[in-house]
Amino acid sequence: MTRNLLVECVPNFSEGRSPEVVDAIEAAIRSVHGTVVLHRTSDADHNRSVITYAGLGNSVVESALRAARIASERINLNDHRGVHPRLGALDVLPFVPLSDTPLDYCIELAHEAGRRIWEELGIPVYLYEAAARKPERVSLEHVRRGEFEGINEATRSDPSRYPDIGGPHLHPTAGAVIVGARKFLIAYNINLRTEDVSIAKAIARSIRTSSGGFPAVKALGLSLPSRGLVQVSMNLTDFEQTPVHIVFLEVMRLAAQSGVEIEESELIGLMPRKALEMAAAGLLKLHDFHPDRVIETRIESVLIG
Amino acid sequence: MTRNLLVECVPNFSEGRSPEVVDAIEAAIRSVHGTVVLHRTSDADHNRSVITYAGLGNSVVESALRAARIASERINLNDHRGVHPRLGALDVLPFVPLSDTPLDYCIELAHEAGRRIWEELGIPVYLYEAAARKPERVSLEHVRRGEFEGINEATRSDPSRYPDIGGPHLHPTAGAVIVGARKFLIAYNINLRTEDVSIAKAIARSIRTSSGGFPAVKALGLSLPSRGLVQVSMNLTDFEQTPVHIVFLEVMRLAAQSGVEIEESELIGLMPRKALEMAAAGLLKLHDFHPDRVIETRIESVLIG
Repeated sequence: MTRNLLVECVPNFSEGRSPEVVDAIEAAIRSVHGTVVLHRTSDADHNRSVITYAGLGNSVVESALRAARIASERINLNDHRGVHPRLGALDVLPFVPLSDTPLDYCIELAHEAGRRIWEELGIPVYLYEAAARKPERVSLEHVRRGEFEGINEATRSDPSRYPDIGGPHLHPTAGAVIVGARKFLIAYNINLRTEDVSIAKAIARSIRTSSGGFPAVKALGLSLPSRGLVQVSMNLTDFEQTPVHIVFLEVMRLAAQSGVEIEESELIGLMPRKALEMAAAGLLKLHDFHPDRVIETRIESVLIG
Repeated sequence: MTRNLLVECVPNFSEGRSPEVVDAIEAAIRSVHGTVVLHRTSDADHNRSVITYAGLGNSVVESALRAARIASERINLNDHRGVHPRLGALDVLPFVPLSDTPLDYCIELAHEAGRRIWEELGIPVYLYEAAARKPERVSLEHVRRGEFEGINEATRSDPSRYPDIGGPHLHPTAGAVIVGARKFLIAYNINLRTEDVSIAKAIARSIRTSSGGFPAVKALGLSLPSRGLVQVSMNLTDFEQTPVHIVFLEVMRLAAQSGVEIEESELIGLMPRKALEMAAAGLLKLHDFHPDRVIETRIESVLIG
């Protein structure tokens, strides 16, 4: 791997009740120079934690390896109970491009991390989403169907359930890691000034991919009774294909047809700079916008070369 | 000066016909480590050049000193002719805050640069805009009234025209430098889908500060006959006080009253990142936006500490 580009990594671990274990995993991630931990969340009911971190490609792979090692030492799936399905101690490991990093680079990183997880830790690996090697493994839910216990059983008799790297049987306590590459997911909600949830549900239906709306949009209509509002709650899984502001304008247009206005929108978690720049340029109708027109970006690009 | 923050500097030199001289000045600016030249433009009729550069405070002051030295060695105002008024070889030297740099820091830099220009080069200095020490010198036009020849004469008899630092007489060939601090100026135009220039003129009148509109807005209505459009051409001299998107929305509203739509808007030159983020957050009605929600900004702030 000759290039070294900015990448986000969002590993999910099957431990959400013991902060000491999650602390040890986070410390392993942080122990790599150049890796930046951005966010951490644990859920006791799910018995699951997510640690979001970023860095250059070489750093994030090394952090993932160290995290996988600690997770495999500290988590035994035979003793793990939680409401969220899981296959591994380190359960899911997606690599996500940031800045101008191409998705192909993250696919390479996923394959490299998967190979090393098997070779160095003896834990088999399934590859999903953009890193999948088989079309039926693009979907994470499909790969994890039956979860640890069921897949452990299936690999005894069904070659179609064998891991993509290593195996064919699961690791006895750490299961398997589902490694992938995907685009940045923007969690974005728009709140409407009405209490009629049917309006939010109709808008969600009209914009989401699964009902024939925009590509790369998941959407639900929800009620926010304590605020007297309704919400169109969205995941934008490819903001370059369907930008935030295009969704905003369409929700505004559809709401207006019912005489309803947008109260506000909200971002859950983080957003790539490019999505924000696309929104500003799009909504201001800036016909000649380029990121280089932002003075700080220009300075950084000159300083970095 | 204990801090060292990101600053832009936009020196104007009284030479626009001899590229070798401007090359020598630009080389002097670039010779300081950490200074980044962003843009350069020369005008033969004005006989004047503008070099836009940026860097940390210490670097930009050092670059300004080196540029002032070369300009004073290579430019003789007694031989200089051009349609633009000028007082010095290095004529105007504004320091402009970038990122989160406070304007007060640029005022300190302006005073430091002014002191050094006098002490090291023997060229007297007038202080203008936010760096002015006398209210009547806030306006650059007012400071430069009479330009080199007239002010040279005036300082022989009128103490009210004495420089703020050094003097009281001008440098015999390099004149004086007008050093200041000001906020970032955004040059921004909105083109309207009509050929009726009276609509653009009425909108410009309604939004500009001088006619009682928004603060920190200069605006003109112009015709773009070759495109069949009219333009509201603006300088936004404090985008935090009157943001780009507020101007955009008001122009859209006023144009709609005449049944006219916005065709597009355009940015002349560069724009600070904050102005773009404010526009995106404002137009998307993002109620909880903070620059830290941009993943690249978060990573940079963690990496820099």
